[in-house]
This record gives sequence, C-alpha cells and structure tokens, in this order.
Amino acid sequence: MFSQIDTPAVLVDLDIAEANIDRFQAHCDRHNLSLRPHIKTHKLPFLARRQIAAGAVGITCQKISEAEAMVAEGGIDDVLITYNILGERKLKRLRTLSEQVKLSVVADNTETVDGLSQAFETAEAPLNVLVECDTGAGRCGVQTAQAAESLARYIASRPGLAFRGLMTYPPVGKDASVQNWLAEARARIHATGETVSVVSSGGSPGMWQAQDVPIATEYRIGTYVYNDRSLVARGICTWDDCALTVLATVVSVPTEDRAIIDAGSKVLTSDLLGLNGHGHVMGRPDIRVDSLSEEHGILRAEAIHLNVGDRLRIVPNHACVVSNMLDQVELIRGSTSLGACPVAARGAVW
Amino acid sequence: MFSQIDTPAVLVDLDIAEANIDRFQAHCDRHNLSLRPHIKTHKLPFLARRQIAAGAVGITCQKISEAEAMVAEGGIDDVLITYNILGERKLKRLRTLSEQVKLSVVADNTETVDGLSQAFETAEAPLNVLVECDTGAGRCGVQTAQAAESLARYIASRPGLAFRGLMTYPPVGKDASVQNWLAEARARIHATGETVSVVSSGGSPGMWQAQDVPIATEYRIGTYVYNDRSLVARGICTWDDCALTVLATVVSVPTEDRAIIDAGSKVLTSDLLGLNGHGHVMGRPDIRVDSLSEEHGILRAEAIHLNVGDRLRIVPNHACVVSNMLDQVELIRGSTSLGACPVAARGAVW
Repeated sequence: MFSQIDTPAVLVDLDIAEANIDRFQAHCDRHNLSLRPHIKTHKLPFLARRQIAAGAVGITCQKISEAEAMVAEGGIDDVLITYNILGERKLKRLRTLSEQVKLSVVADNTETVDGLSQAFETAEAPLNVLVECDTGAGRCGVQTAQAAESLARYIASRPGLAFRGLMTYPPVGKDASVQNWLAEARARIHATGETVSVVSSGGSPGMWQAQDVPIATEYRIGTYVYNDRSLVARGICTWDDCALTVLATVVSVPTEDRAIIDAGSKVLTSDLLGLNGHGHVMGRPDIRVDSLSEEHGILRAEAIHLNVGDRLRIVPNHACVVSNMLDQVELIRGSTSLGACPVAARGAVW
Repeated sequence: MFSQIDTPAVLVDLDIAEANIDRFQAHCDRHNLSLRPHIKTHKLPFLARRQIAAGAVGITCQKISEAEAMVAEGGIDDVLITYNILGERKLKRLRTLSEQVKLSVVADNTETVDGLSQAFETAEAPLNVLVECDTGAGRCGVQTAQAAESLARYIASRPGLAFRGLMTYPPVGKDASVQNWLAEARARIHATGETVSVVSSGGSPGMWQAQDVPIATEYRIGTYVYNDRSLVARGICTWDDCALTVLATVVSVPTEDRAIIDAGSKVLTSDLLGLNGHGHVMGRPDIRVDSLSEEHGILRAEAIHLNVGDRLRIVPNHACVVSNMLDQVELIRGSTSLGACPVAARGAVW
C-alpha cells in the first residue's frame, strides 16, 4: 500500500477533499449562505484556492501568519482573521497584509480595538472589524447583546476602522438561542444607526444545520474539507468521506492481541474530542488505537492478526491538528500517489 | 516580560536545563550508571553536546531522522536508536549513519533482524543490536526471558550484526520484577555463550530510583533536561526545575472568572499524562488551564484578575511534545533573552 511513501505519513485524498468542498458549497448555495472556509484544517494554499473556485467568498484564518502563508502564492483576496490581534509586531504585519487583500478581523474588547485603530489610522482604507460574540460556547466574545452594541459603537468611532458586523463561534445544537442572541445584538446596533453587514457563524459539527441560524449571512468551517473520526461519530459524514488518513507500518506484534505502529502522538496527536481511542483503522473496525506515546501507537484487538511490516491507514480523531504535525502531506487520488506537498501554514501560531 | 519575544513562544531556560543535566549526571556517576539521554525532549544538537560534555556516554533517539539531525553538526559519536527499523529506505539511511557514528539499534522480532542483517552484511563493521524486552510496560518487546534468549541467538547468528545486550522501557514502580526479568534473560543468554554487554533501562518518572534495577548498566532519560508539570506532580522535581515554559498573551477576558490566551493545543498540545488541566500558570496556582482549542487556551479561576495584553508563563504537562510544535524555541537565562534557536529535530518521525 503506497510502497513509495515512507511511514508514518499523512495522506490527503484529493478526490474526497474536492467532493467534500463541492458538497458543502452546494448546501450553502441552496441556503443563500456565504461560505468562508477556515484554512486551519488543510493549511494548503492550493486547497484554499480550490475552495474559492468552488464558490467560497473568502477564507478564514485564526492567526496572521496563517493568512500570510495563504496569500503568499496569490489567488486569495478576501481574508477574515477571527482573533483579537494585539501587539506592535502583529499589528505591523496586519497592516502590511491589509495592503494585499480585503481584510477583516474581530475584536471583543476595547484594548484590541485601540491597537487596531492606532495601526490603521494612517491607512488608505479602513480595516473591517467584526464584534466577536460569545453566544454560549464560552471561549472569546462579548457576553451580552448590549456589550456587542457598545463595542460596535466604539469600533465605529475609532479612526482607521470600519464596523462590519458580528461573528460567533456558536455552541453546538443551540441554534435558537444563538439566533436570538445575534438578532437582539443586530437590532440594538441598527437602532444606533450603524449597519450590521455581516453575521458570521460556523463550525463543522453543525454544518448541515447551518441554515438554522437564519440571521447568519456567512458560515465558517474547517474540518469539512477532510472530515475525521469525530465527525463520523457525530453522524456528519461517513468513513468514505474522510480525506485525511495516517499511513503507518506495524513495527512489532508482541502478543496475539497487541501490535505497535510507527505513528504515535507526533502524528496522530493526543486530541480525543470526547472519543475513546486515537483513531479508526480502515478496514479493521475491531482494532482499538488504544494508546499513544510519541513514536508508538498501541493497537489492541481480540485477535490482532497483523504482521511486522504490514501497512495500515488510520482516520484520526481530529484532522486539523494532524495537518499541523508534519512538514509535508502526501497527496493521493484513490490508490494513486501524486507526491508530497509542503504544509505551508504548519506551525503558524503568530 | 520578554517584550522582545512575540507570543506564543516556547522558552527554554538554559541555567535550569544545565543544572538538570548536571544533577542527574552526578546521580548516575554516584551509582556507576552510564547515562544515555534521549534527545526527544529538546531536539537540539547543542544540548545533546552539553549532555555528552557533562558525562553522558552517548545519546538515545527513537527515529533515524532524529539521529541524523543530532549528528549533522558533529560532536556526537555514539547513538542508540531504540526502535524496530524496517524498510529499504530507512535501512539505507541507517547504514549511512553507521559510517558516521558508533551506532546501536534494538529489535524485538526476526523480521526486523533480517532487514538489519541484509542492510549490514556488506558493512565494514557489524551493527550493534540489543533485544528489546517488554518487562511490563506493554509497548514493544519480547514477552519472556526465553524469547529474549532466542532472539539474542538469532541476532548473533546473522551476518552484519553483533548482539550487544538488552533494552527495556520499564513500567514505573516495578523495579524488582524488572530486575528479575532482565536477570533471567541475561543468565539464559550467558549460558549460550553470548555476552550481554549492555542492559539499558530508563524513564524520567523513575529517575531517582535508577539504581534500583542494579542489573542495568545504562539509563536512558529525556524529560529530566526540561522537566514538566507531570514530573512535578510525581514529586520528581519542583516548579523551579522546569526549564521549558510557554510564554502567552491574554487576548480576551470575557468574564470575571475566565481569560483566553493565545496558546492553544498547537503549542501546549493535548497531552494530559493523567493530569487535570493543561498546564501550570507560573505565579498563579489558583488558575486552571481548563481547556484548549487549537489557538486558544481557556483559563479559569474564581477571580481571574488578568487584563488583555498581560503575559503569562505556563509549565506544560509534557515538555517533550511541546518541543515538537514550533520550528524554534527562545533561549533564555533567567530574565535575559538569548535569541531564538531552530529545533533541529522537530517533526522527525522517520
């Protein structure tokens, strides 16, 4: 199996990835929802361009360095960075980036807004800023619709900035309360005379219900391009829709119920996402990927029936974090290998 | 705090790392135990050379690519790779490496031994091979002393190879049974006329009891160079002995009991090692690093008392895996920054 590829390796099946891109784009088109894919899953400029070509309005990045890696090759001209950007170094890079693409960012506090304003007050065009709203997921975001209104007015009042709308990373399965939260915030902001042009929601677990928060104008989503064991477990997709797999070699079969592979947490990561075990062995649902150390994966089954040298493909719990582990992925289509591809935005945390 | 370093960043305090190296070297010297540090923790050639300068007999690597990165700069001439090495590509690289340094590897099965023999039968000097023994940790390794004897004889019979001894990654706190296991294997092998020159044990959790498996001639250990929250929790070291910390910035304080930092699982990783939470905030033991997404760390405390822009240092659960996340670490001594250093063996999984 892919004998020309040394293991461990991260395989990306482009046939599957392209089908995933097109399927969800069609869903968004049907529901008049703008799609803005999050590149954190693939970290590959050519797949970002493929998402744009399919109809996406732009891309989402979490960090400036991810955005820089995406736009370096050209072909991407609309970027939303969903992060409070702070500090002179990052603001300088943000200003440079804004001269290359249509750029939007988010903020949930006045310290962030003040920094953005200082960096952009001398810019030719204002920076687009959305207010990040905590609609129940408990990460970043202003806590109330009133606070959203207040921060929106603050953004609109600052030189160099343009208030653009609202952004949330919503809790899963709480569509009605997310809708109410955002609707109240929008109404309050409209009452002040400001315009909420964009309401951005997202998340792969809720992807097929994206339309159930009708106030949202755009949807941000990352994992859908590859899918993973966590999304199969949620019923979002099937194993056949999983584009990213880890190719590993059995290096030891110490007992009849245990085998060791050359992929550990340095490839599969320790992300559990609430699951038991560390991945799904394709074609062997009886095997548990029981535990990982850095370079070893420990497989268990009632009868392991594996030999030293056998190759396996594993669907990881969480595709996005696996993309971040190796400097390259191996592109494939079905059983055809297309060669290695550097992961341009790997390790981009700034 | 380190205002010249952009966050998130991995800081390595060389004063602490050097003290850790010297302290455990002195312990091994006192007990006549050869020390063979595992470079997986730091992945930095200059620290491997510092370990050798302190008295280490050589280094341990898990993968060939790690060893290649370590020897590329020179100054390291004795390497043990504690892995079953399989496949033409890897065996060719192993043969090349053997021409540069004194090299040993391990095996726990005849398929691995056959491959090693084929690769080395035309070599000028034989490859040193140790039998990996599963003394209770349940990872790789032959299962019985009898199987160890059998594989030792097999290695000794193959062209291009020299049987050197026994290697184990032992279970924690089972010193007596590890000793018995290895003593029986050694006695059996000696009875066949072969010599067990090396008995290699290791592991940071058991480091201060390394002498309690008296049959061991050498000790392999990685984490001790940096230490981490998992070793503090085991009482192996104190917070002051932790050389690796993650520098992060508070980017959001949504509520009075919650703050968000710019270091998530892409820096701190999801490794729990049996602990609750994802790290220790230096100077703020009341704060829990409650959960991580890729670029966000969620901190909680009864009263969080943090402001947007504040900088924190976090001791991670597991130092080794954090070393693997970014392309560079920032070297410091106390509050003095020495500049960035590339992590030569980052992502070295082949």
